[in-house]
Amino acid sequence: MAYNSIILRLELTHSMVDFGDVASAISKAGGDITSIDVIRPGQHTSVRDITVDIADQGEASIVESLNQLKGITLINVSDRTFLVHLGGKISIQPSLPIKNRDDLSRVYTPGVARVATAIYENPEKAYSLTIKRNTVAVVTDGTAVLGLGDIGPFAAAPIMEGKAMLFKQLAGVDAFPICLDTKDTDEIIRVIKAISPIFGGINLEDISSPRCFEIETRLAEELDIPIFHDDQHGTAIVVIAGLLNALKVVGKRMSKVRIVVNGIGAAGVSICKMLLAAGVNDLVPVDRDGAIVRGGEYTHPMWQWLSEQHQVGTMSGSLSDVIKNADVFIGVSRAGVLSVQDVKNMAPDRIVFAMANPNPEIDPEQALPHVRVLATGRSDYPNQINNVLVFPGIFRGALDCRARCINEPMKLAAARAIASVVSGTELNEQYIIPSIFNELVVTKVRYAVIEAAILTGVARRTPPDFR
Amino acid sequence: MAYNSIILRLELTHSMVDFGDVASAISKAGGDITSIDVIRPGQHTSVRDITVDIADQGEASIVESLNQLKGITLINVSDRTFLVHLGGKISIQPSLPIKNRDDLSRVYTPGVARVATAIYENPEKAYSLTIKRNTVAVVTDGTAVLGLGDIGPFAAAPIMEGKAMLFKQLAGVDAFPICLDTKDTDEIIRVIKAISPIFGGINLEDISSPRCFEIETRLAEELDIPIFHDDQHGTAIVVIAGLLNALKVVGKRMSKVRIVVNGIGAAGVSICKMLLAAGVNDLVPVDRDGAIVRGGEYTHPMWQWLSEQHQVGTMSGSLSDVIKNADVFIGVSRAGVLSVQDVKNMAPDRIVFAMANPNPEIDPEQALPHVRVLATGRSDYPNQINNVLVFPGIFRGALDCRARCINEPMKLAAARAIASVVSGTELNEQYIIPSIFNELVVTKVRYAVIEAAILTGVARRTPPDFR
Repeated sequence: MAYNSIILRLELTHSMVDFGDVASAISKAGGDITSIDVIRPGQHTSVRDITVDIADQGEASIVESLNQLKGITLINVSDRTFLVHLGGKISIQPSLPIKNRDDLSRVYTPGVARVATAIYENPEKAYSLTIKRNTVAVVTDGTAVLGLGDIGPFAAAPIMEGKAMLFKQLAGVDAFPICLDTKDTDEIIRVIKAISPIFGGINLEDISSPRCFEIETRLAEELDIPIFHDDQHGTAIVVIAGLLNALKVVGKRMSKVRIVVNGIGAAGVSICKMLLAAGVNDLVPVDRDGAIVRGGEYTHPMWQWLSEQHQVGTMSGSLSDVIKNADVFIGVSRAGVLSVQDVKNMAPDRIVFAMANPNPEIDPEQALPHVRVLATGRSDYPNQINNVLVFPGIFRGALDCRARCINEPMKLAAARAIASVVSGTELNEQYIIPSIFNELVVTKVRYAVIEAAILTGVARRTPPDFR
Repeated sequence: MAYNSIILRLELTHSMVDFGDVASAISKAGGDITSIDVIRPGQHTSVRDITVDIADQGEASIVESLNQLKGITLINVSDRTFLVHLGGKISIQPSLPIKNRDDLSRVYTPGVARVATAIYENPEKAYSLTIKRNTVAVVTDGTAVLGLGDIGPFAAAPIMEGKAMLFKQLAGVDAFPICLDTKDTDEIIRVIKAISPIFGGINLEDISSPRCFEIETRLAEELDIPIFHDDQHGTAIVVIAGLLNALKVVGKRMSKVRIVVNGIGAAGVSICKMLLAAGVNDLVPVDRDGAIVRGGEYTHPMWQWLSEQHQVGTMSGSLSDVIKNADVFIGVSRAGVLSVQDVKNMAPDRIVFAMANPNPEIDPEQALPHVRVLATGRSDYPNQINNVLVFPGIFRGALDCRARCINEPMKLAAARAIASVVSGTELNEQYIIPSIFNELVVTKVRYAVIEAAILTGVARRTPPDFR
């Protein structure tokens, strides 16, 4: 359930009303008071800021009930979510102050000319003498944002800024939002290539399918820095991490289970690919038209690719048809597509990952009685499948070893690293995935990613802790 | 004279050598010791860091003389200019920490969705709810960098980062370097348009002539945020500022003087335009082929434009021919093109701005005896003409009033504001231009720019101090 936090600034006339009346009016209207600050005390009147948690859309009813009280003047209502966005959420800071002409002559003209010349003579030095070493572009065209869809580059900016905050706080990566005012695939590729020199990596974000596949594939071919479409691979990596642990909980093996993946868009394709790389032998990809079957003919290039894999089954039919006796359901589709009867038709010790955003493929309350392990994208149930577990650590690792790309072995290593943060004694049905605030996550993902990059020959630098 | 600062880490064996020997060897080799740090004291040996200022290229001779001393081990030589560049010179900082899930739900999902929706419904809100309000792109293709020329986007990065530092420190503007891996005019325009949504302004930098004219003109037409090619207008504005004060010193008026501008490239064109806007009636533009004359035919579109202005003279000839009886020489060309005889042929109370980089059009020592006011681009003579006086304040003003563009009245206002920082009592031949560290510069330029933007109808917001 989404909720807001609002701040009500009130003036109370003490002869007419006391704070108890205010508190009870707020509670009755569904608000939960979390803090009170007296802004201006006084003998006859006082001004207070009251911070209240409320359900989404609940602000109006609180304002209404307060207005019905005599002796209350509502001075202002601020929304804490909007307050933290004022002026944006990131800033650029110089690494040192320029106090005098001597400093200036080193960081700018004339001294900087020697540094520029050194990079001109050996472009690899851009990694030591510029921000390239630690800087990632978070690039979107705003076409597939959260559950909001095609809201464009301006409206997508707050999400990209939020991502930049997480990059820095969780992994020390400097990330800058690039919001593109074009939806043309070729143009997006050209623009990203053109702006790439200052960046050590590109995190693609919220670009709609199927354009996202071509954009990522061509950029990976044409640039020598890591390209990572988070909606595809971030989701896939954390799903595999969760699944590795869920299978441990129920005592089944990846090579023996039947897995239905519902929703073969950006995330679904990457999940299928990673499942195959992880050793799955019985995969059933399902989209709106039903199961994608081996030997079928599809116009979507990724569906065609799936139909050519020997691990993909030949049984056709709707989701309800093909889910019978499946061990695992992985949904990256839409709310309500999975019925309770579908779940009951699965094999025993059922694992259901229902990650449609914001409402899962099946209501968690309805699914829980019938499954061993349930995971969703939501924070109000256990086992939240959240990309924030992935992108900070995977880029920290890729940057630290100057990887040319982020390949499948690096992704699989990241998934195993996330899974490994939950120890054998901690592991249970309600705890298959660590918290995003668990500091071990970035440390372990980074290490695993670097190790895999070195082993697969895509690392251009050996970090000190690997020497 | 360019110089470096290096740090020598030495181990001294006390029985064989004392610090006096070291100091005298460094001095004899031309080094100036500015600080000493004892890193590891000891009875028999000690390790010290000695910071030394030396002339460019002087490092080798110091190393050589130290190596000739017995009892000295030179452990390491670091160059302070390179040291401050390690890892780059700017970073991205979150505006607040994400301490827990509650914080996360406000700055990222799910809360951010409401902010994104608000911007989608009213794109103007990008100015209050994202970094757009305070963020400028510093964009280059690396084709015309300092005195270095076409060194490309990687090598240009340290200059763009230095500029970003100055933007933040002097004017609180968040600036991010964009270094383009393309030299194609149309492509550069397309790329900048595509990445523009997150930026409140575009500072073009070090893009070679004549492409820079078309890039700036078309972007200004097609985008509604300020576009400012600093090499053109930054230079022109500070030249006009200096000239306003120089004319006061010699007691001449803008409308009465004859001005020769030598070097009609990016900066020269903008200087000529601003001089005309400032009321000059006798302008002589000169390039390699000699004076550009009224009524002449030129392929360069800007030269053609100049030849159509009634204030441009009809006298043809070389620089030496046309400089006779000129009141002012403004050079943005190359070293050595102005002779002492040329200067002597000017009208009395000569004003010479010789700004070729790194060596002026005439050696300042040779020019000084024959002129009233001399200005150069160098910091080792009085009256340094430096763009750093312009770009921080002009963008501070343009961002604060959300100007759609930076027009000629705003530029002229900026020039007058810079000139006004030098008070009537302070003004003299050696002091026509304030220091870049004078805090009044940004304050006055900002104010003047906003005032001009409001008067010319290009401001979209009235800052609080103008209400």
